Amino acid sequence: MKKLPWEEFAELPISDKLPFLSIDRTVNEPFHVLFAQQFDRPFLDSLFALADRIRKIHKTSDGVIFLRSLLADRQALNLFVQPSTRTFLSFLCAEQNLGMMTADIRDVSTSSQAKGESLQNTIRTFSSYVDLIVMRHPDKGACELAAWEMNMADRRIPIFNGGSGRDQHPTQALLDVYTIRKSVDEIDGKTIVMVGDLARGRTVRSLSYLLKNYRDVSIIYVSPERFRIGEDIKEFLDHHNMPFRETDDLESVVGEADAIYMTRIQWEWDSAEGLAERHGESDPRFVFRTEFLDKMKPKSCVMHPLPKINEIDPELDYLDDPRLVYWRQERNGMWIRAGLIARVFGLSDVIMSYKE
Amino acid sequence: MKKLPWEEFAELPISDKLPFLSIDRTVNEPFHVLFAQQFDRPFLDSLFALADRIRKIHKTSDGVIFLRSLLADRQALNLFVQPSTRTFLSFLCAEQNLGMMTADIRDVSTSSQAKGESLQNTIRTFSSYVDLIVMRHPDKGACELAAWEMNMADRRIPIFNGGSGRDQHPTQALLDVYTIRKSVDEIDGKTIVMVGDLARGRTVRSLSYLLKNYRDVSIIYVSPERFRIGEDIKEFLDHHNMPFRETDDLESVVGEADAIYMTRIQWEWDSAEGLAERHGESDPRFVFRTEFLDKMKPKSCVMHPLPKINEIDPELDYLDDPRLVYWRQERNGMWIRAGLIARVFGLSDVIMSYKE
Amino acid sequence: MKKLPWEEFAELPISDKLPFLSIDRTVNEPFHVLFAQQFDRPFLDSLFALADRIRKIHKTSDGVIFLRSLLADRQALNLFVQPSTRTFLSFLCAEQNLGMMTADIRDVSTSSQAKGESLQNTIRTFSSYVDLIVMRHPDKGACELAAWEMNMADRRIPIFNGGSGRDQHPTQALLDVYTIRKSVDEIDGKTIVMVGDLARGRTVRSLSYLLKNYRDVSIIYVSPERFRIGEDIKEFLDHHNMPFRETDDLESVVGEADAIYMTRIQWEWDSAEGLAERHGESDPRFVFRTEFLDKMKPKSCVMHPLPKINEIDPELDYLDDPRLVYWRQERNGMWIRAGLIARVFGLSDVIMSYKE
Repeated sequence: MKKLPWEEFAELPISDKLPFLSIDRTVNEPFHVLFAQQFDRPFLDSLFALADRIRKIHKTSDGVIFLRSLLADRQALNLFVQPSTRTFLSFLCAEQNLGMMTADIRDVSTSSQAKGESLQNTIRTFSSYVDLIVMRHPDKGACELAAWEMNMADRRIPIFNGGSGRDQHPTQALLDVYTIRKSVDEIDGKTIVMVGDLARGRTVRSLSYLLKNYRDVSIIYVSPERFRIGEDIKEFLDHHNMPFRETDDLESVVGEADAIYMTRIQWEWDSAEGLAERHGESDPRFVFRTEFLDKMKPKSCVMHPLPKINEIDPELDYLDDPRLVYWRQERNGMWIRAGLIARVFGLSDVIMSYKE
Repeated sequence: MKKLPWEEFAELPISDKLPFLSIDRTVNEPFHVLFAQQFDRPFLDSLFALADRIRKIHKTSDGVIFLRSLLADRQALNLFVQPSTRTFLSFLCAEQNLGMMTADIRDVSTSSQAKGESLQNTIRTFSSYVDLIVMRHPDKGACELAAWEMNMADRRIPIFNGGSGRDQHPTQALLDVYTIRKSVDEIDGKTIVMVGDLARGRTVRSLSYLLKNYRDVSIIYVSPERFRIGEDIKEFLDHHNMPFRETDDLESVVGEADAIYMTRIQWEWDSAEGLAERHGESDPRFVFRTEFLDKMKPKSCVMHPLPKINEIDPELDYLDDPRLVYWRQERNGMWIRAGLIARVFGLSDVIMSYKE
Repeated sequence: MKKLPWEEFAELPISDKLPFLSIDRTVNEPFHVLFAQQFDRPFLDSLFALADRIRKIHKTSDGVIFLRSLLADRQALNLFVQPSTRTFLSFLCAEQNLGMMTADIRDVSTSSQAKGESLQNTIRTFSSYVDLIVMRHPDKGACELAAWEMNMADRRIPIFNGGSGRDQHPTQALLDVYTIRKSVDEIDGKTIVMVGDLARGRTVRSLSYLLKNYRDVSIIYVSPERFRIGEDIKEFLDHHNMPFRETDDLESVVGEADAIYMTRIQWEWDSAEGLAERHGESDPRFVFRTEFLDKMKPKSCVMHPLPKINEIDPELDYLDDPRLVYWRQERNGMWIRAGLIARVFGLSDVIMSYKE
């Protein structure tokens, strides 16, 4: 990245961008976190072990104090140009649990960008003050641009993609895979069912990318005709010899699933696409109904990236079934994000060797 | 709460809801803080002693450090859907003074609720990350719903009502009573005058409820005909044999008062009620004028929940009379809230036994 | 300030206001920070030494911990009624680096002021909770009013002006002078060129005031006819025998400059002034072009208060020339603000005598 002009960099395929995400490190040791594609199996395994460890340490008061001492000299900026309370909260708490001081900007529209400043300049300026920027932005390339800018700067700090455009949400994908692994022990050989608005939900895209790190995984995409998974994802799966199929009948595949990943219809995009508002919102074919639990394997899980509306029967919120993991999935996100920050700041060893 | 469906719970009278506010505790040891009605005299006495103690400890640098160590391993979320800078600040500083890490959400309209998520789900999600939620919401039942949801959840955290609808603002009532007690030593047998928009101000409602914990208290309600105290409050007072009377002549009762509680006309509700805008705003009959101080008892107090507009002669802001306590009342709120948090987290003993 | 009514105080010339900015101290030891005019040479010299020292201490992990212990018992409120992410972030990080707990309010329009409360009352209320208020406000006199109110109050805390109206932005001026001094070692005898919208940019005004503390400084103002520096500034310079001249030809003065201070055309004021939108935005005569570097002295600097748009050739952002200091200037702001806070809280000695 250092010497490549932005226009040239932006044109590269993702695989050629990956080396630029590390600094004086191997490709597998990330500095910036931008794409689900940047993680390989050894990285995932060690990150999940680190997140497990952080969670365990956090259970004691002494452990909390230890964790909060680790980055007590560092500051994080959560730059959320696009609204997202839950990803914001998850990162904030992850940072605080590692002791970081935090600043947040949740609306850039009213500030310098309104005065005509470029995003590059905004990022360069903000990076003057802090040691990490977590960024959520409606534009697809915004986080890449920020990371590129940092690679050109004297004071280089890591950029974490907290969700950009419809495309990438890599930490969500990490927590999803982490949750599957915790629920069914081992991902190799499993069948993952993804349901809902697969065309416009970025979580299913990032999750599909990440699953290539596991052996013999099958994916079943369940969606209305209108909202099928993108052709680029199918090409990616074909390229990596990952079997998948598509259907519009959730009920028929519930029994096969090791993990069912529900998503909501993202009707906020409807008007931009010339669709009638809330097209397909309440199609009962894509709702997880209580009775499906009877058909599911005893060791399996129902997930959701949240927020959910009515894609999962609301009475399940109050049912005590260990396969309903979507609330735990949410908290897993905080641990994965804490693990990721700890990793980027070189704290894996000190955490893994902490004695209670 | 655990096993009661929401619809059934919502229908209960408040007295029947109170047992659900505690967890594995007596009714008098709150977990959730929702209603002014939930506090009894022993609780008030010990809470005020705890708040006094925290304030005293906070006067030294060592004391500040001690206090900040108490909840250094806990996180609080201030979820303020309805704007309120002062209650927000008061809770924030209370939390910080006990060492809590804090997160705040001050506008949910732009986030997941806009995507169609239910309030229950929002609360359940947020509760994944933090150890306390302080909530301000325009809907009357929102905090109750949040507390009910928590009672149904695996990871149960306390909900504090920071003001809901026009109805309840229990921590405001606590600080009001605390301020009266500090100003006139003893509340039993005293006369409390409440002035202004008694129909729409929730502080006078909560304060009226709380005063039932004291013996021989008389209340005088002073308001325009249009904005009299609600019938439900009068029934509550009658039920508890608490004498009260109503008048529209503030000047005539100034000499009787041990505490005068001024409130502003809440003209922001006018249009919703079909009233001409700022109906009654500047009615001089409901303004506390400087010369009233001459008629007041030497040991008495003038209070206001703030913000005030012109209900108190502005020149009093710069007068040095110990009976004008409304600025101190504001700071009392921070100590009461710190005391309440400390109490809910089981810190009363460690604080009360702290040696300087 | 203590006994002067606001109306009388507001009418005073700045020089007569200065004594009110200190409390039980000499005029040169500020309590409130309101005007660039309030700093004299000894103060500037010692503040810059303090900022240098803080920056140096911050380079080690132990130093960071030391700094964060200094004000760990204090709370700061950043009250930014006018949007400004960078000044906000700069102050926030400065406060956090000294260990302060922080609260921020970035939109008062939705809160108590909307209910009709006066600014005085808002400030008095907020001051109940915290130990420092940093304030940015669109109204020229707002920070003065806040400081005056504090001088009338029992609980008196310092007010820092974080930018008020078009007039004053004193901490920006401090960081600008600090940056010049760091870039060219010594300001006495130097030539400072200020370029752009000199009529509406407050930074050039505050900087001009501050430069009176140095000997034999010459100022060259470069601007479109429409946006010349104000007559009041010229009178100020004449009064202090500070030579200046005006031109609209940047290129012709580049070789003379020790520091070139670029500013953007503040077109957000255009409509209020009846100008066509973005009047003069892209006038190439007021753009710093790459080739100007060849004409500049070897030891000199190019500055910008940021955000910038196109006043500086964007390719310079990626050029490695030590004279391009505008990014460093930004980070200098954080150190100066930390120094200023440390100074007001009486920490100069403990910091200057810290041994690594």
